[in-house]
Amino acid sequence: MPPGTLPLPLNTMTLTDLIGTLAAILTTVSFLPQALHTFRTKDVKGISLGMYSAFTVGVALWLVYGLLLNAWPVVIANCVTLALASAILVMKLRYR
Amino acid sequence: MPPGTLPLPLNTMTLTDLIGTLAAILTTVSFLPQALHTFRTKDVKGISLGMYSAFTVGVALWLVYGLLLNAWPVVIANCVTLALASAILVMKLRYR
Repeated sequence: MPPGTLPLPLNTMTLTDLIGTLAAILTTVSFLPQALHTFRTKDVKGISLGMYSAFTVGVALWLVYGLLLNAWPVVIANCVTLALASAILVMKLRYR
Repeated sequence: MPPGTLPLPLNTMTLTDLIGTLAAILTTVSFLPQALHTFRTKDVKGISLGMYSAFTVGVALWLVYGLLLNAWPVVIANCVTLALASAILVMKLRYR
């Protein structure tokens, strides 16, 4: 192996980790613009109650899954998503 | 260990797997009622373009992550979510 280079598996791992981290950040923070949009416009007619009911329960289960496995990235990401998704669900129920 | 019982770690694993599977199913299929709701009502004013842009890119990255790790449950779940989220994104862009 030439000096200053990394073995291929390590390079591959780092790229995979980077892609996974970016994916987790994007799918987690994406609910922030929706929560802000709904808070500002109070327009919830286009938002599906079925989606936010199923999604909020699903994210709560991901949180339990992360806690059972002591997987802290899963716990932290799903705490953020749970807060945002349940805020959207509460607004859907309150503003309709 | 009494006959007919499972060792505790196996019981715990099975419950954790069940919770993770339920979580994955709920957070994946939850986008179906939203896609159907938007298709029927064509009301996209309440839907955030920022959310569906970031979310669709994030899910596409989860798909790449799953492919890089040969993690087929991640690939399958994110294929379904990518199809639904990108359909909602296209409707948001078309119906506004």
